Amino acid sequence: MKRLKRVQEKIKQKRLDAFLITNLKNIHYLSGFSGQGIKVLVTREETFFFSGTLYYEEAKERVPGSFQIIRETKPKFFRPFKRLGIEESSIYLKDYFLLQRLLPKVKFVPCRDFIESFRLIKEKGEIELLKKSATVTREVFSSLIKQLKPGMSELKVAGVICGLLREKGAEDESFPPIVASGRRSSFPHATASKKVIKEKEPIILDFGGMVGGYKSDFTRTVFLGKMGKKENRIDTLLKKAVSLAMAEIRPGVMIGKIDQAARHLLNREGYGKYFIHNLGHGVGLDTHELPFISPKSRKRLKDGMVFTIEPGIYIPGWGGMRKEDMVVVTKDGCEKL
Amino acid sequence: MKRLKRVQEKIKQKRLDAFLITNLKNIHYLSGFSGQGIKVLVTREETFFFSGTLYYEEAKERVPGSFQIIRETKPKFFRPFKRLGIEESSIYLKDYFLLQRLLPKVKFVPCRDFIESFRLIKEKGEIELLKKSATVTREVFSSLIKQLKPGMSELKVAGVICGLLREKGAEDESFPPIVASGRRSSFPHATASKKVIKEKEPIILDFGGMVGGYKSDFTRTVFLGKMGKKENRIDTLLKKAVSLAMAEIRPGVMIGKIDQAARHLLNREGYGKYFIHNLGHGVGLDTHELPFISPKSRKRLKDGMVFTIEPGIYIPGWGGMRKEDMVVVTKDGCEKL
Repeated sequence: MKRLKRVQEKIKQKRLDAFLITNLKNIHYLSGFSGQGIKVLVTREETFFFSGTLYYEEAKERVPGSFQIIRETKPKFFRPFKRLGIEESSIYLKDYFLLQRLLPKVKFVPCRDFIESFRLIKEKGEIELLKKSATVTREVFSSLIKQLKPGMSELKVAGVICGLLREKGAEDESFPPIVASGRRSSFPHATASKKVIKEKEPIILDFGGMVGGYKSDFTRTVFLGKMGKKENRIDTLLKKAVSLAMAEIRPGVMIGKIDQAARHLLNREGYGKYFIHNLGHGVGLDTHELPFISPKSRKRLKDGMVFTIEPGIYIPGWGGMRKEDMVVVTKDGCEKL
Repeated sequence: MKRLKRVQEKIKQKRLDAFLITNLKNIHYLSGFSGQGIKVLVTREETFFFSGTLYYEEAKERVPGSFQIIRETKPKFFRPFKRLGIEESSIYLKDYFLLQRLLPKVKFVPCRDFIESFRLIKEKGEIELLKKSATVTREVFSSLIKQLKPGMSELKVAGVICGLLREKGAEDESFPPIVASGRRSSFPHATASKKVIKEKEPIILDFGGMVGGYKSDFTRTVFLGKMGKKENRIDTLLKKAVSLAMAEIRPGVMIGKIDQAARHLLNREGYGKYFIHNLGHGVGLDTHELPFISPKSRKRLKDGMVFTIEPGIYIPGWGGMRKEDMVVVTKDGCEKL
């Protein structure tokens, strides 16, 4: 397990004796399996997989031999340590207090992005899963738009999406599908409601599937019947914003520049104040993960990063439109997934 | 808002100046709306709803007037406080450290189950939503079993469940449906896989829908074709275990007794070691919430509690069977939802 080795190296670099992993996606990243309440403890030499009773038998079958599967998390596994790293972004205060009480002699070292920083650069196999996931999602979209009709409720549409995703090979949806029509399309994160979709109103469809644990995230704004003039104008702008952003992407470029390329256009055309979120975010085992494509980010792109490009315009009381695709940074540019 | 008033009373009782809510279900409980990153601050006189940019417009429409909708969480809202309650079960260590840094003069008081203890006893309106949610789920089950055929993959079945749930009126599934067939049925929490379902093997179907934010949780183990002798025996035992447990339920009874009533039967019949989890758990805005129906619980039942009764038997290498229903405690007993 190359990934476990990297964790152990980092443990030594940080002069830790061990690292406790409570983030389920990080656990999946290392072991290929996870579930509620599961914890992993990586020491300099060994790795313990605390499965709990419910996952014990399943873990024995699915977790690689480099992990020792332990049914019950007991303090004795932790007592020998002087310095124990913990994940400050995924451990609840309650559990931190509990650890302090149970292990009064251990010094806890809160760490941030310890494993997330590995996950930031996708390996070949991960990119393949992300591609599969994006392909499934696109296929679902193609089937879906043939079925969309005025009079369907947003929830009905969401149900079709969830069924199709699994039919085409996803294990789960990445998140509850966003189906936001008419005025509701001006709410960027509106999940599907009982509202019925109508002709000539914007319908934001934002969904994705999960394949091998890897998620996709995809948005299109569709219209039943002909688009109005304003809608057409915004549609063109969003497409142009995506192109401008993509043209900036290659290793070494400052992340903020990508967001600014799209934002600058929307500002110039008078729509800037309606573009109320970052241009994009990383996608992988989590729907939202590193890197965050914000206008202020001074970090640099690297080959193997995967993220969304999703300019959106939300006009209160009128409606909204968004277009979202996923890209992977390649050696000399980027590729749409 | 009666619920907000109760929070404010409790704030005074605990000699706090204010209480910061980071648990999204607790926020939904108080305001009817929530979303990622939203926080609520209840002071002795006022209530602030920190929506963030993404939810600002939606919150203005959906959150009651007793809340002040604030786009950005700023330290100035917190500075006047000496003692600020926080939710230790739903605040991450990172955010706790951040609060300490931003508000060096505030004393933080970690609280547990501050609002969850209100949620433990369901009001009439909540029970109605839970009933609707249970009804939708049962309807889905009835449609589903007519469609089940050997040769369908577990994932295909899960897809049908997700589609049907929304068609029948749920907003979302309570959790990714568990469809675990054959040997996989011995894994209590196995989510659906590519495995194809066959005749004469146990197929655990564990799913639920969400209605008005309230979840249901329901399990049946079905067989395509005739059940074997052993399966029949276990099926009878599980039904009996549910009846024995239900017969114990009424206000005032110690919670542990309910679990023990079922567990005792399974122990006596030699299946005790295969019943590896609690008999049940509360259900409401969360799929798993208070009360936990464990054999050791010394707490007492109260009118209005809603929880599952779900005895299960998991025989490694052979398979598993589980039966799960939701009940509400009434004045003199209980009622299946």
